[in-house]
Amino acid sequence: MKKKKYRDQAGLFIAEGPKVINELIAEGLQLHSIFAIDDSVGVKNATVITQTELQKISCLTTANSCLAVFKIPKKELTEDSGLIVALDAVRDPGNLGTIIRLCDWFGVAQLICSMDTADCYNPKVIQATMGSIARVEIQYVDLVSYLKDAKCPIFGGVMDGTNVYTQKLPENAIMVLGNEANGISEAVQNVLTHRISIPQFGKNKATESLNVATATAILLSECKRSTGR
Amino acid sequence: MKKKKYRDQAGLFIAEGPKVINELIAEGLQLHSIFAIDDSVGVKNATVITQTELQKISCLTTANSCLAVFKIPKKELTEDSGLIVALDAVRDPGNLGTIIRLCDWFGVAQLICSMDTADCYNPKVIQATMGSIARVEIQYVDLVSYLKDAKCPIFGGVMDGTNVYTQKLPENAIMVLGNEANGISEAVQNVLTHRISIPQFGKNKATESLNVATATAILLSECKRSTGR
Repeated sequence: MKKKKYRDQAGLFIAEGPKVINELIAEGLQLHSIFAIDDSVGVKNATVITQTELQKISCLTTANSCLAVFKIPKKELTEDSGLIVALDAVRDPGNLGTIIRLCDWFGVAQLICSMDTADCYNPKVIQATMGSIARVEIQYVDLVSYLKDAKCPIFGGVMDGTNVYTQKLPENAIMVLGNEANGISEAVQNVLTHRISIPQFGKNKATESLNVATATAILLSECKRSTGR
Repeated sequence: MKKKKYRDQAGLFIAEGPKVINELIAEGLQLHSIFAIDDSVGVKNATVITQTELQKISCLTTANSCLAVFKIPKKELTEDSGLIVALDAVRDPGNLGTIIRLCDWFGVAQLICSMDTADCYNPKVIQATMGSIARVEIQYVDLVSYLKDAKCPIFGGVMDGTNVYTQKLPENAIMVLGNEANGISEAVQNVLTHRISIPQFGKNKATESLNVATATAILLSECKRSTGR
């Protein structure tokens, strides 16, 4: 279950540690099974196993005190409204986890991922996002087709776009962020309706572009600040 | 040299891979020594060593093609002006690296770190920041004393502060960010002149607070957007 292939086949994913497990239960996710090293670690109805057994099934270098297997929730694509974030081939689980937490913080209900974006049930993403993963609706789609069918403006974070601080941002929109090394792919760039950039204030042109998670933070902050909701 | 103690004693730090090495040379940092697996990897005047030898001295799980040792530059505390970022016990090298890149992007010339903040010459920080490390002046200080002596307003990112979107932000100011788990320490909170927060738009109060690097991204963006420089 450490691999996407087996998670998909079984329809299950792993979460570790009492905090994340209890948050996911509180969010209404369905438990498949739960294990703990003793009765006092802070989770209910766990099967008691030894530390050695727990380490064997754990995805962490050093296992926590408990591990739960949850069913991957079946999600239906709800009608698009409000601000939607779309990711084009974001590969790093840490970045994906940070972006899911940002969506939760900024009240973005839907996160749309291209098929080649990192899997949101990757153990690293689950551990990084805590309960946020259950509060943000995440869908994997053919991103170009999805965007072609969209009825709202499609903004994309690029290096040579309009200054985001001066661009009017609507309430209902899709915000696209691209791959860590290559940005938004050409096919997706072709279906954007607005190209926006975060201006660089430092004078050195050798400066690396912003990391995709920090760029997402700034763009979501701007959308929410300027529309006030 | 993988440990701070030995880096400090020797006054040296390690950078790996042609891109970061060449950026640091271009920024004027002094080379102590440089090694490469052959003459064609893209760095000049390197001593040729074998891949096995390189892996032995490398800090990376899989060594790049070259490794350089640089002298830690001696920095003098320049007069405070513009926007300054101060970190109170930020422990994660990845977060520190991201914050250094953000400072470089937003033209923040000075980064002040408490003595218990992660070391900026940690190999993970060097690899994450690329040339940014040479463009941002980084100082480790007794943060409470430093802030007590400061002559400009001191803003701190806290959970229960004024909404950053409505707070007037001056051009000359210090922006303090705190530890990953505990935020800004009480001693430092006592010397803040303004407490600010990034408002939460999602309705779920169980949502984890923003990561320190994403919070820094949003606060720097707000300062620069609102002061326009």
